[in-house]
Amino acid sequence: MPATPRTQAPPSRIRIQLVRPTIEEGRWPVKRTVGDIVAVSGDVFRDGHEVLRAVVRFRQNGETDWSEAPLTPVDAHHNGVRWAGEFPVDVAGPTHWTIQAWVDVFSGWRDEIARKLDAGQIDMSGETSEGVVLLRDAASHATDPADRSALEAAAAALENGEPVAQALDAGLAEIVERVAPRSEVTEMPAPYEVYVDRVLGRFGSWYELFPRSFGGFKGVEAQLPRLAELGFDVLYLPPIHPIGHTHRKGRNNTLVAGPDDPGSPWAIGDETGGHDAIHPELGTLQDFDDLVQAAAEHGIDIALDFAINASGDHPWLKEHPEWFNRRPDGTIKYAENPPKKYQDIYNLNWNTDDWQNLWNALLKVVRHWVDHGVRVFRVDNPHTKPLPFWEWLITEIHSTHPDVIFLAEAFTRRAMMRALAKLGFTQSYTYFTWKNHRWELEEYVDELAHTEEAEYFRPNFFVNTPDILTDYLAEGGPPAFAPRLILAATISPTYGIYSGFENFEHVQRPGAEEYIDNEKFETKQRRLDGPLLPLVQRLNQIRRDNPALQRLENLQFLETQNDALVAFAKREGRNLVITVVNVDPHTAQEGLVNVPYELGVPPSFTVTDLIDLGRYDWHVGGNYVRLDPWERAGHVLHVDTP
Amino acid sequence: MPATPRTQAPPSRIRIQLVRPTIEEGRWPVKRTVGDIVAVSGDVFRDGHEVLRAVVRFRQNGETDWSEAPLTPVDAHHNGVRWAGEFPVDVAGPTHWTIQAWVDVFSGWRDEIARKLDAGQIDMSGETSEGVVLLRDAASHATDPADRSALEAAAAALENGEPVAQALDAGLAEIVERVAPRSEVTEMPAPYEVYVDRVLGRFGSWYELFPRSFGGFKGVEAQLPRLAELGFDVLYLPPIHPIGHTHRKGRNNTLVAGPDDPGSPWAIGDETGGHDAIHPELGTLQDFDDLVQAAAEHGIDIALDFAINASGDHPWLKEHPEWFNRRPDGTIKYAENPPKKYQDIYNLNWNTDDWQNLWNALLKVVRHWVDHGVRVFRVDNPHTKPLPFWEWLITEIHSTHPDVIFLAEAFTRRAMMRALAKLGFTQSYTYFTWKNHRWELEEYVDELAHTEEAEYFRPNFFVNTPDILTDYLAEGGPPAFAPRLILAATISPTYGIYSGFENFEHVQRPGAEEYIDNEKFETKQRRLDGPLLPLVQRLNQIRRDNPALQRLENLQFLETQNDALVAFAKREGRNLVITVVNVDPHTAQEGLVNVPYELGVPPSFTVTDLIDLGRYDWHVGGNYVRLDPWERAGHVLHVDTP
Repeated sequence: MPATPRTQAPPSRIRIQLVRPTIEEGRWPVKRTVGDIVAVSGDVFRDGHEVLRAVVRFRQNGETDWSEAPLTPVDAHHNGVRWAGEFPVDVAGPTHWTIQAWVDVFSGWRDEIARKLDAGQIDMSGETSEGVVLLRDAASHATDPADRSALEAAAAALENGEPVAQALDAGLAEIVERVAPRSEVTEMPAPYEVYVDRVLGRFGSWYELFPRSFGGFKGVEAQLPRLAELGFDVLYLPPIHPIGHTHRKGRNNTLVAGPDDPGSPWAIGDETGGHDAIHPELGTLQDFDDLVQAAAEHGIDIALDFAINASGDHPWLKEHPEWFNRRPDGTIKYAENPPKKYQDIYNLNWNTDDWQNLWNALLKVVRHWVDHGVRVFRVDNPHTKPLPFWEWLITEIHSTHPDVIFLAEAFTRRAMMRALAKLGFTQSYTYFTWKNHRWELEEYVDELAHTEEAEYFRPNFFVNTPDILTDYLAEGGPPAFAPRLILAATISPTYGIYSGFENFEHVQRPGAEEYIDNEKFETKQRRLDGPLLPLVQRLNQIRRDNPALQRLENLQFLETQNDALVAFAKREGRNLVITVVNVDPHTAQEGLVNVPYELGVPPSFTVTDLIDLGRYDWHVGGNYVRLDPWERAGHVLHVDTP
Repeated sequence: MPATPRTQAPPSRIRIQLVRPTIEEGRWPVKRTVGDIVAVSGDVFRDGHEVLRAVVRFRQNGETDWSEAPLTPVDAHHNGVRWAGEFPVDVAGPTHWTIQAWVDVFSGWRDEIARKLDAGQIDMSGETSEGVVLLRDAASHATDPADRSALEAAAAALENGEPVAQALDAGLAEIVERVAPRSEVTEMPAPYEVYVDRVLGRFGSWYELFPRSFGGFKGVEAQLPRLAELGFDVLYLPPIHPIGHTHRKGRNNTLVAGPDDPGSPWAIGDETGGHDAIHPELGTLQDFDDLVQAAAEHGIDIALDFAINASGDHPWLKEHPEWFNRRPDGTIKYAENPPKKYQDIYNLNWNTDDWQNLWNALLKVVRHWVDHGVRVFRVDNPHTKPLPFWEWLITEIHSTHPDVIFLAEAFTRRAMMRALAKLGFTQSYTYFTWKNHRWELEEYVDELAHTEEAEYFRPNFFVNTPDILTDYLAEGGPPAFAPRLILAATISPTYGIYSGFENFEHVQRPGAEEYIDNEKFETKQRRLDGPLLPLVQRLNQIRRDNPALQRLENLQFLETQNDALVAFAKREGRNLVITVVNVDPHTAQEGLVNVPYELGVPPSFTVTDLIDLGRYDWHVGGNYVRLDPWERAGHVLHVDTP
């Protein structure tokens, strides 16, 4: 219980409970972004008939003083014990907030007097004597002489037998509320936290490429104007570090590399350096710094891959042999999940006695790249590393750089993915690539958008990755690509593309849900010239122009009377967008998109397809749509008169 | 995090979260009764592929050692991270429990070997060396020589090149699991609590009477055989203390008492004593002790009223004037809630600087009556006293007498009623008397039975009280009484009757929802001879015979195709009871009670009306029922072949 003014005061009689938003009653912060308004609520009540007041107190990252915003009683269902209010967040990092409540003694006195006057009570001498004390006490705290004299005059009038009704004057109450100390001040046992990310934590378009396939850092730098033109916000690079030679993988994940095989960038480290070094074929550290700066000038963040594994040639194996798992016979264990084997990678021994140095070394790696201007990290397989490590590392980085974004590359059990998001990961990869039918998309997206998960788990809908070429794309071929692109870009405020997608690359390595001739194991010659790029550019522009597409929790699926037609509406303020996509890549599909009146539209209205600017007359009720996968994968419709 | 065996070990990698049952993540206990099985569950997971084990550890009131019960993975939806199990509670008081999880290193090793054998791996030398170490380590912890030699033999065989498959023997794993220390042992940050009441906390039939209307304690004692015969478990007496003279209320709550008016028992205290004294007209303390003992011999608990208010003549006003609210002009404030006034009662000043002595004095009052054998207290208006006081008082009493039951007489905001239940009140009065239509009964009871509230809030369905004679009873007259009685007795495991109900007393004081000539202000001459008593006796017997009626959470409302017919089923094990009540006291009603196949009944079955032993053929689907309020208020049907 917070301290009350008197020593040895009894415990507070005011109860503050069921405060929202929070995860697990204060254990984890909820997430917001700069510029958001945080809506809060809580039960505030006390025994007896006293008049209570409540505020939300909040302190943004770096601030020393607490600010206050009003709370007001809401919700008749809770009989007025539910209070609600809001406060703005405009600084990245943790904002702490609490609810403070107190007894408004003078208002309670006024209410009692008013009720007694209504009931016809004549003798008010006892009540009057209370009012005099309250007014005098307030006067003693007034700093403005005008306030003080007003309060003293009111007290004297009461004392001199003036009608008590005069003390009910609202102006007098306003002065008392302003100057009198709060009584029985009570706060929550501990403040709650909102973690505030910069807007990119919620809304952004990602592009992934292997820099070696674009001629290294200088070659990538040359692509920046085009990437900016395409509307990308983040350029994500797989690991840029030296690649080990020992057990290097060959093309198509074969066990023996040829002399020209470059190896997997995730087999990090050789005799020249490890996680803080740069692969010499990509360029120099200066080239990297140049790339980061040039990208920033184009409004693009460079995202690095943070993959905690080491090739057999990583310097740490010699410098810190105790950081690696060894068998009793002395051999080091490579990474494996039988029958899968990663012979080119060694995992760390997280249970080493030297764990504190290990943790600090990893923190130092991240700090190194932060110091070189990197503010976005895609974290490789975080679910195979200890959760307490991530909580510590992210908190450490955020303590100096609250704007750093961590994307969890976790495709694993839902509880683990949620745990990573709760402890601090800004965003996460998702099951989106495997949700291709209408029913499973709706089920999954409704969970992401409309359960408690929406408070802390931000999806990043990649349409493909070097590891994932789904059967849906492989079997559907080119007509399957645009629907997936439109769904990712309009459902999720953050989405991504790995290069090759725009060229309809869709041949799997036999027996694997992966690309044949995977770029992980060989260098490609790539250019930004894929036939899907005009649609990508259009969608990214639409996303920037329409605030409705920059949030997820506002998504509402619409009935279409056709299981191959996915439709949903999103509204932000006056901006209302309806997306309709045919998820059948083989056949034209037609249906009726039902616009419910609850969307707040007039009975008839026009919509503009933001992709091709076609206009249609729509109305509340069913609206005919036909989508032929070879002609048009979907509509992204702006409601012109919402 | 709990300590792990090594010093400076890294924080545990095992996460235990979303553990149930609890209220607000450990803030409040859930409630159970002696003999219950507590079902628990929680997410238990860790990074990596290690094999986890988990148990629930529990320690009942008074025990020093922790017991263990197994947890097993459940629920495919959580991908196996959800574990569940149960433990029994058979001691009244707080049972503490926690989940403990650990890494089963040997099982993980076995799994890895098995998967590698399946994958055709030949060279197992590294894996073998690990197995030898694990087996030797287990052997070093074995206390049984047979275990030790089995483990050492297996280690030697592995070391000598025997096939590794031999080490997969299940018997070997069983020995290792039994003797090897648990690795990475992890528990919840703090144990959770289940408060275990004696069964009367959940299931009991209450009768309330004013002892002065039955000739004092001796007169009441004479009623005990009949009360036991009627099936009552608790006999609740309004305050038995001296009654003040100052501002004593007269008949029908008038301001001036006549010379023979006895006053309200809630105006506690006169010059002869206060809360620990006995009104001389009721008898002596010895008479009271005799009553308590005689009641116990009939299996009946005497419940006292704990009303924290004082008449103007209470000794505390002189001994502890600082315990009472005084105006600046020196006058003491009587209790009021304008325009309501309680001129015969003074409330305590809970904010007094002497609050600790005040709290202790009140505790001493409760202890006094506990020392005289009282184990049930009906607490008057707890919602007008500080919540922290109640939490402290109940915890103090339960620390020495965990079997004491506290019933909260709170008719107020839902949040306050819930808060009282969370902090420790065993039971609470409810809104039941005002829920007379089918829709509102179903809505209210579903909330009580099927929301989180069911974990901590136990309703006590009084059909009337000295303060409550509802319009429904007043207007419905005698035909309205039996339906309410059946509903209370069959919906709620705990219910109560205030004397007079069985006589169909139903005349209100004009303008009030209260009895005319209220017994609070005058002495009646009462006998246990009301015409409803045979039905009361029958219902109480039915309740004892049918475990299904002793719980609330098992209630399921049934469709009847008639808004005047309330029907519900309750099942406990093989005991299945269906109740049907006509809540229209004016008109015969007919309908079809729909028995869904989900109730687990055969297509056709017989039911026996436990009130009149009539038998009927029923079936899955609609079953015709006609209830005439002048003939039969309802059925309580035992399903004979569930």
